Amino acid sequence: MITIAVDAMGGDHAPRPEVEGSVLAAREFELRVLLVGQPAVVQRELARHAVRGLSIEVVPASEVIAMTDSPTQAFRKKKDSSAHVAARLVQQGQADGMVSAGNTGAVMTVARFVSGTLPSVQRPALAAPLPTGRGGVAVLLDAGANVDSKVAHLVQFAVMGEIYYRAIFGVRRPKVALLSIGEEEMKGNELTRETYSRLKQLPLNFIGNIEGREVFSGSANVIVCDGFIGNVTLKVSEGAAQHIVGQLKKALQSTLASQVGSMLSRSAYKEFRRSIDYSEHGGAPLLGVRGVTVIGHGGSNANAVKNAVRVAAEMARARLNERIEQELSALQVAVEV
Amino acid sequence: MITIAVDAMGGDHAPRPEVEGSVLAAREFELRVLLVGQPAVVQRELARHAVRGLSIEVVPASEVIAMTDSPTQAFRKKKDSSAHVAARLVQQGQADGMVSAGNTGAVMTVARFVSGTLPSVQRPALAAPLPTGRGGVAVLLDAGANVDSKVAHLVQFAVMGEIYYRAIFGVRRPKVALLSIGEEEMKGNELTRETYSRLKQLPLNFIGNIEGREVFSGSANVIVCDGFIGNVTLKVSEGAAQHIVGQLKKALQSTLASQVGSMLSRSAYKEFRRSIDYSEHGGAPLLGVRGVTVIGHGGSNANAVKNAVRVAAEMARARLNERIEQELSALQVAVEV
Repeated sequence: MITIAVDAMGGDHAPRPEVEGSVLAAREFELRVLLVGQPAVVQRELARHAVRGLSIEVVPASEVIAMTDSPTQAFRKKKDSSAHVAARLVQQGQADGMVSAGNTGAVMTVARFVSGTLPSVQRPALAAPLPTGRGGVAVLLDAGANVDSKVAHLVQFAVMGEIYYRAIFGVRRPKVALLSIGEEEMKGNELTRETYSRLKQLPLNFIGNIEGREVFSGSANVIVCDGFIGNVTLKVSEGAAQHIVGQLKKALQSTLASQVGSMLSRSAYKEFRRSIDYSEHGGAPLLGVRGVTVIGHGGSNANAVKNAVRVAAEMARARLNERIEQELSALQVAVEV
Repeated sequence: MITIAVDAMGGDHAPRPEVEGSVLAAREFELRVLLVGQPAVVQRELARHAVRGLSIEVVPASEVIAMTDSPTQAFRKKKDSSAHVAARLVQQGQADGMVSAGNTGAVMTVARFVSGTLPSVQRPALAAPLPTGRGGVAVLLDAGANVDSKVAHLVQFAVMGEIYYRAIFGVRRPKVALLSIGEEEMKGNELTRETYSRLKQLPLNFIGNIEGREVFSGSANVIVCDGFIGNVTLKVSEGAAQHIVGQLKKALQSTLASQVGSMLSRSAYKEFRRSIDYSEHGGAPLLGVRGVTVIGHGGSNANAVKNAVRVAAEMARARLNERIEQELSALQVAVEV
């Protein structure tokens, strides 16, 4: 049975959604969950659930990384944090993967330096799921594990993202695109132009550049970019969504005066929020590290945690890391890394 | 009287919105408009309006730059295009500024090479207006005039954007921010970290880094970034808005069944669209070129054209270019350009 270590102390509302999500996952997917955190706190939360017959254990970790901790400080100083203990469980083979909704920078640093990167991987990349128009998902990477990426890094991101998309979303030939500022090969900056010329030589279903406008359209499955751009893209999307929802609320309030109207608008608004909710898609894997690591949004609810556990288990079952290592080392010559 | 040359052939729906917007501007703002384009086409459109007493003239230009033309080709081959003629009117002092809703890349190239850049300016920058939560406007630059910007370029963008915001929006000490991936000085990439350390030494109201999420929040008035990032930011916002509006339509359709409901939703939706409409804010000026140049969205309607003409006139009246040249040359030492 696949075992997933869950950082029970990581998220904004920890440990409640972490514990509930783990219980849901253990019930629904028949896997074993190790809840890592301060035992008294985690046990108290666990007592709220019916867990008889489920494979859930608590693994003690005395320290907690705060959202405000600096990644390197947290990595160096809090060796007994729930993130460290979860990463060591993976590194020592006691778990097949880990999930954390904690401080993204700190979790990435911990996962990367406790487990190490795969031998052929130059830089791990965070692969963020984005909802697309037709109910699908696109994966954008790097979503912020690196800045100032070089061409060889972006090429590796493309290969890792493609393998991930194939394995997790069951698409045989995912469409891989490069995020740029024009569709033509010559549009973009130095980095994207050179990356384009490399990607088109690889045995990928490379569809060329896409513009920012296409990120949510579903025209690409895997969207490759530098981590600075990826982070800006995600946060700008969030900001634009927030802005639009705010404007929408005002418009609905001023137009729908009656109680019926306001009830209708409430339910429409709820459905609308659900449709743009990222939590269904289960967190962002950190691709390229030796241990399977899935990082959830700090505000993850139980459903998001459950789905992150599912994704980690699927990655472990699909032996994703072995496939990444195999394909990258085979491509070593082609990509001239 | 201020004279503005309008490229009547540039936009997606040219010349209709260009001509109507120019008539509205001439009527509302008491300025003179030179409509530049193929005379027969422009005159036919002009005949639809009551223009007696308004100062509107048609200036002939035989060629038209298509949206699909490459900027350099268009610049070199179509010397009698409406954009070229408008830029020459500015360069020769027959107009105080130009407005075009045409092919952005081509118009930037034409404006830049017909008029030249200001002596102290290393790179012109496109300054795009963004609507913010409280009904305000933020200006983001560079929105795509350059890629692979250097530190000195970003510093100049900050100075030019601040002068523009002061002059056009009447804010005495606009808040200037750098777009990055974390608020702390050390967050970001090489470019933003070094730019941060330069900006904080300048006599600007520099509020530090903002993240993508803050772009629409109104926390900054002037948002500085490389043109690649700026272009991605604008297009991702557009894509996210489109995605959300699509999801919203679906939610409203499935929830508000009755005719009353659908009418209510239609009017709420319309108000909502208006509130996120960029056209009120009048196009993006290309700052740093000798001639005042304002570039509208290709899909500009008459209102957007009218507002772009207003902005161009305000820039001319405020002697914006003289102020940019003065302040940049005074800062020459401080910014170590």
